[in-house]
Amino acid sequence: MLKKLLITGAAGTLGRMIRTEMGGVAETLRLSDLVPIEDAPEGAEVVTCDLADAEAVDRLVAGCDGVVHLGGISVEKPFGSILQSNIIGLHNLYEAARRHGQPRILFASSNHVVGFHPQDARLGTDAAHKPDGWYGVSKSFGEAVALMYFHKFGQETALVRIGSVTPEPIDRRALATWFAPEDFVSLIACVFRAPRLGCPVIWGASDNDTSWWDNSGARYLGWRPKRNSAEFAKKIAALPMPAADAPVSKWQGGVFTALPIQED
Amino acid sequence: MLKKLLITGAAGTLGRMIRTEMGGVAETLRLSDLVPIEDAPEGAEVVTCDLADAEAVDRLVAGCDGVVHLGGISVEKPFGSILQSNIIGLHNLYEAARRHGQPRILFASSNHVVGFHPQDARLGTDAAHKPDGWYGVSKSFGEAVALMYFHKFGQETALVRIGSVTPEPIDRRALATWFAPEDFVSLIACVFRAPRLGCPVIWGASDNDTSWWDNSGARYLGWRPKRNSAEFAKKIAALPMPAADAPVSKWQGGVFTALPIQED
Amino acid sequence: MLKKLLITGAAGTLGRMIRTEMGGVAETLRLSDLVPIEDAPEGAEVVTCDLADAEAVDRLVAGCDGVVHLGGISVEKPFGSILQSNIIGLHNLYEAARRHGQPRILFASSNHVVGFHPQDARLGTDAAHKPDGWYGVSKSFGEAVALMYFHKFGQETALVRIGSVTPEPIDRRALATWFAPEDFVSLIACVFRAPRLGCPVIWGASDNDTSWWDNSGARYLGWRPKRNSAEFAKKIAALPMPAADAPVSKWQGGVFTALPIQED
Amino acid sequence: MLKKLLITGAAGTLGRMIRTEMGGVAETLRLSDLVPIEDAPEGAEVVTCDLADAEAVDRLVAGCDGVVHLGGISVEKPFGSILQSNIIGLHNLYEAARRHGQPRILFASSNHVVGFHPQDARLGTDAAHKPDGWYGVSKSFGEAVALMYFHKFGQETALVRIGSVTPEPIDRRALATWFAPEDFVSLIACVFRAPRLGCPVIWGASDNDTSWWDNSGARYLGWRPKRNSAEFAKKIAALPMPAADAPVSKWQGGVFTALPIQED
Amino acid sequence: MLKKLLITGAAGTLGRMIRTEMGGVAETLRLSDLVPIEDAPEGAEVVTCDLADAEAVDRLVAGCDGVVHLGGISVEKPFGSILQSNIIGLHNLYEAARRHGQPRILFASSNHVVGFHPQDARLGTDAAHKPDGWYGVSKSFGEAVALMYFHKFGQETALVRIGSVTPEPIDRRALATWFAPEDFVSLIACVFRAPRLGCPVIWGASDNDTSWWDNSGARYLGWRPKRNSAEFAKKIAALPMPAADAPVSKWQGGVFTALPIQED
Amino acid sequence: MLKKLLITGAAGTLGRMIRTEMGGVAETLRLSDLVPIEDAPEGAEVVTCDLADAEAVDRLVAGCDGVVHLGGISVEKPFGSILQSNIIGLHNLYEAARRHGQPRILFASSNHVVGFHPQDARLGTDAAHKPDGWYGVSKSFGEAVALMYFHKFGQETALVRIGSVTPEPIDRRALATWFAPEDFVSLIACVFRAPRLGCPVIWGASDNDTSWWDNSGARYLGWRPKRNSAEFAKKIAALPMPAADAPVSKWQGGVFTALPIQED
Repeated sequence: MLKKLLITGAAGTLGRMIRTEMGGVAETLRLSDLVPIEDAPEGAEVVTCDLADAEAVDRLVAGCDGVVHLGGISVEKPFGSILQSNIIGLHNLYEAARRHGQPRILFASSNHVVGFHPQDARLGTDAAHKPDGWYGVSKSFGEAVALMYFHKFGQETALVRIGSVTPEPIDRRALATWFAPEDFVSLIACVFRAPRLGCPVIWGASDNDTSWWDNSGARYLGWRPKRNSAEFAKKIAALPMPAADAPVSKWQGGVFTALPIQED
Repeated sequence: MLKKLLITGAAGTLGRMIRTEMGGVAETLRLSDLVPIEDAPEGAEVVTCDLADAEAVDRLVAGCDGVVHLGGISVEKPFGSILQSNIIGLHNLYEAARRHGQPRILFASSNHVVGFHPQDARLGTDAAHKPDGWYGVSKSFGEAVALMYFHKFGQETALVRIGSVTPEPIDRRALATWFAPEDFVSLIACVFRAPRLGCPVIWGASDNDTSWWDNSGARYLGWRPKRNSAEFAKKIAALPMPAADAPVSKWQGGVFTALPIQED
Repeated sequence: MLKKLLITGAAGTLGRMIRTEMGGVAETLRLSDLVPIEDAPEGAEVVTCDLADAEAVDRLVAGCDGVVHLGGISVEKPFGSILQSNIIGLHNLYEAARRHGQPRILFASSNHVVGFHPQDARLGTDAAHKPDGWYGVSKSFGEAVALMYFHKFGQETALVRIGSVTPEPIDRRALATWFAPEDFVSLIACVFRAPRLGCPVIWGASDNDTSWWDNSGARYLGWRPKRNSAEFAKKIAALPMPAADAPVSKWQGGVFTALPIQED
Repeated sequence: MLKKLLITGAAGTLGRMIRTEMGGVAETLRLSDLVPIEDAPEGAEVVTCDLADAEAVDRLVAGCDGVVHLGGISVEKPFGSILQSNIIGLHNLYEAARRHGQPRILFASSNHVVGFHPQDARLGTDAAHKPDGWYGVSKSFGEAVALMYFHKFGQETALVRIGSVTPEPIDRRALATWFAPEDFVSLIACVFRAPRLGCPVIWGASDNDTSWWDNSGARYLGWRPKRNSAEFAKKIAALPMPAADAPVSKWQGGVFTALPIQED
Repeated sequence: MLKKLLITGAAGTLGRMIRTEMGGVAETLRLSDLVPIEDAPEGAEVVTCDLADAEAVDRLVAGCDGVVHLGGISVEKPFGSILQSNIIGLHNLYEAARRHGQPRILFASSNHVVGFHPQDARLGTDAAHKPDGWYGVSKSFGEAVALMYFHKFGQETALVRIGSVTPEPIDRRALATWFAPEDFVSLIACVFRAPRLGCPVIWGASDNDTSWWDNSGARYLGWRPKRNSAEFAKKIAALPMPAADAPVSKWQGGVFTALPIQED
Repeated sequence: MLKKLLITGAAGTLGRMIRTEMGGVAETLRLSDLVPIEDAPEGAEVVTCDLADAEAVDRLVAGCDGVVHLGGISVEKPFGSILQSNIIGLHNLYEAARRHGQPRILFASSNHVVGFHPQDARLGTDAAHKPDGWYGVSKSFGEAVALMYFHKFGQETALVRIGSVTPEPIDRRALATWFAPEDFVSLIACVFRAPRLGCPVIWGASDNDTSWWDNSGARYLGWRPKRNSAEFAKKIAALPMPAADAPVSKWQGGVFTALPIQED
């Protein structure tokens, strides 16, 4: 079990869903976000931190032996914003980790790294990057950074390409991308309990009947998701049907593929 | 839900098994066959139609927004017969579909398209065609036609390589090829409910312990077969054992591989 | 060396280019076409034959120990015409071969079997069929027939996917598809001189700098094309440039992909 | 059902676990080992036999129509010992089988044939051999022998790369390698009941959440393991954590990869 | 032929080698660099431009219908410098291109994108990114940007992973990585003369006997390098031999893999 | 350049062809064989040595920094003979190498390791072993030994699957398998001059038009064979044609595949 697990982006939707379930993973939590966290679980350290601030990130990482990096921007935004949090921020995080004993990192990458693959393609973890916007590009960058630190310094990272973490799937596309919060929690446990992690790509999705991604490469970690979006298939079937050529029907990245570039 | 689903070959064994289970798929059924259908479900339109008659097929397809094409010859026969129903008939069907709004089609292709692969080979949907007779050749032709209309005109078709649709598996080979009727029914529903289909090859088989075919490529449709021929394994084990070198033991196409060419 | 080589379609452009160069391949030629051949090389038998006439084809094949099958329609046409020569005709040819000692066959298949692959894809011989019209579908059918007769009866065929056999390349697309007549002639020799042929797919193209097709799988036959369309690159560069999205720039099948269905 | 099944190495740990469960597989058992077997099941023939003694092995195999070959050395040892039992012994076994009607063989190969693959690699049955010691080399040799006799003489063998057959997994590595005895028993039944076996590689492991090996290629035999090491995950998690760079964390072969060469 | 070709980084070693050879590619050149260019070829426009200055880059690209992007940092440097020229600079370039008619781009990517692949691995263009430092990471980022603009907006880019462009190879590693200037020049011509480019990865290397990279995927552009480092093999053989485990012997990225992180 | 290169089997046909051409590879040669060598090149050490004698092999290897291992049996023989020279002998060689500084080894493996692949299959270096007799099995064993010593101890070996080393090809099969002596000599030079070898499989064949083997994986060594069996194609064409189903036409291993097991 970890002594101290840092969760960045802990005030976000994702962070709130998992931060109460880390009991079996770490003795203490350090929760950070750009905005103050007022309802942290008892016993957790709370830090307000801008990822673009290298010194602040250095202090943030010091003393932690594990990091769940959910911080940064997680939707399409102007390049200037993404640059600060997802590019400069990622540099800061990996440099801090290098200086402070190389705590194992789970990096919240995204399915938008491969957003321009069509929905009828089944992807292994070696699928070509086809990012669907600046957000996807920044996650592709993050994976490159992690791989560089792994091969050069032995820094271990789980590159988890998050699908859609919501209590239940919200549309047809999510029948494939749904990642039940408890499956994410069990993945986090597997990542930090494995004797050896390496630097694998892992599809962040539940065991959905509707599936685009082959997760067999992550089986060495002992993780098998248990939830299935099919539980909600009827509810979803009652929603209006999108056109066959709508981005949400055609591309794995859904509507992101059709978003324009946003000016800063 | 479809307004009107055409089922060709509706008087055949396969047609009879599924035509009563289309309640959740279409509001109305149009059932056709070369022979009269006397016991059609209430509310269904019934049409007697020779697939080789282009004008009749044109009228048959008009007004339908979905087609389950089971019609034509489904066993090894002289070329002249296969030519009429499976080659000229297929031309007629796709031309009719092109004229009438391109209803989505489920085409009953066959495992005999790949009949000369050995039983110890595991096939993905990109396996080379190795048809085992004129019947298999005609199904290979049908897949080529569907792909041409897809790429050229956007016509969507599910190329379902049917295994053995029977109430239960009838011999050792069927432990691998068995396709439980309810799994076929659930596949039909998935094919017509998906926002986007494309033109995928799908192995028409249940989730049998004995398996030659990798169906993971069809997971994007949200279909997972539920039945397993292993339920019947003991019963089958009591049947006489075929020789290791018998066609039924050696080739995926079974006895079809050893049938002679039949003269017209 | 063969005793008697049948060349079908011998009056066509392709047939005329090769029929005078078969001296090292066969002792005698039998040349056939739908139209009379008046300028046949001395010593050659000449037969006028409609491939759709099964009995005529039977007589045509009898007594030959090799067949170069160039006959039938070689451009996009109404289905009814293609049906007669390329589908019924192919049946007739293979049945005749089965009855008459299974002479080795070189079948002129076509790159239009894979016409809907994009030009920046490099295809091995296991690339999926994506025919670009009824002509391409008929060649896909022909390959299926040949494979069936190979696996079922041991009939050997070389499936040569002809590119563009012309004295020199005529447009930009032909920089990739050009198949110099002398390279075709040397391929024919290799096909009929090999102790064992099997049933391989072979890309019918020269050793062009511009290339979409990997022909390494045919190296076992000892064939290496010698000509290169790059000899003509300057001449071609002077032609008007097509748009990047024109079918002739985008798809391997070029303009065929954009042809409409022709009514009979 | 087999008339008489020979089990070599029947006095070993593995042999003792399975020899009482062959009731549904064979009418009679012939149990052999280098050491005497005193507690054999009733009705079983018992033979003491040194595998390096060609004549003794010839007598041992005669009259059997199936062989489960567990005999020989199953741990790292000096080359001289391995030579006698696993190399000369294997020659003797296959020559005896050739003379006595080619009884089907299940050969206990080992995961140590691929021991130098890292634990984060997922291996199909076509993974390169990377043996981790002389024991692994001898099993690689055994697979080569079996393949030679298969292609040359049609001798069928199941090449079962045994993981860790123990009542429950004993360490973290065994979460991936655990092969529950009942899953081994059900595999033996599938191997001897299949109409046609061929010469497949099969990963000898249960359906563990933690998994390095893709066993889908063995599905044609109708075998699906039922046990899962995850049942014991908590117990294993309480054991001391090995270092990330320890051989037991890094290589599929675990500690074997770090063993020195033992002098004879 | 292009009207106006922009070459960024035109004052660098690479830029100087190619800028005099663009006569057959473009009518006019616009040469830019961070430093003044005093010896530009007659008729060329010269612009001093900081790639990190978005407005300056916008003006730079306006009016050009082709870009050879050699600009930015081309060795390992502190992150802060790489960020300005290779990350922010790349954003600026692609945004300018989007606003100004999407001129085709040749992007000088680098073999350091895959620097941590071993030298005995043969890489296709689909090899996983394994960057060997911040420079390599920035080129991986650049490829992701280009792919995003291609899929989202149709912007065409050739992703040329430059090896070692020098008049002759300078060490043993360069026997594989050598990219003769004239081969680079001929590649540029092919990239801008093709009717359709797409967004391919191309290995920037000559036709060296010593080779790690499979460039067959770029054959559709009609490019075949002509030079071969083997001309210089004897000269190189006289240099001191590096150790088998030295980074320069082991990794494709050579010494870059062993460079430390440089502080800003 | 090596100080002292050991060539085993130096009195054999192969040994005699290469031993006079090692001038650029090593300062001194040590030539060994089971039989006396009377016509050794001046300056060469000559040793008579039985590979099955561990102590003799130990003395043989001591003092050498390179080994070309041609020794042992190179045709199909009774198992007992192969066991001594090719199995026990190989153990002795690698143990001696381990004790004496791990001189780099070129191991003469054989195409008979893959002899049961059909001649129309194109093999990469990762093709499955399908040995065609005890000789092929012993070479498969040798490759396994070399790989074990490489992964466990870093011992480098080139696994050269020798085709047919003769002054010119002697039959049709040799059009594919011919390995010109000068190409073998240039390969030896490349193997011993590379800074890093690893443990690659290399097809020992010239650049023949007729080809079954893809040698691109060996390109990192800078080796390109120069000779081509096509020079002799006419001469070979005059030989009697074997039947299409003769082993020499069907299998890569040729007649070896049809040889019976020889009794000791």
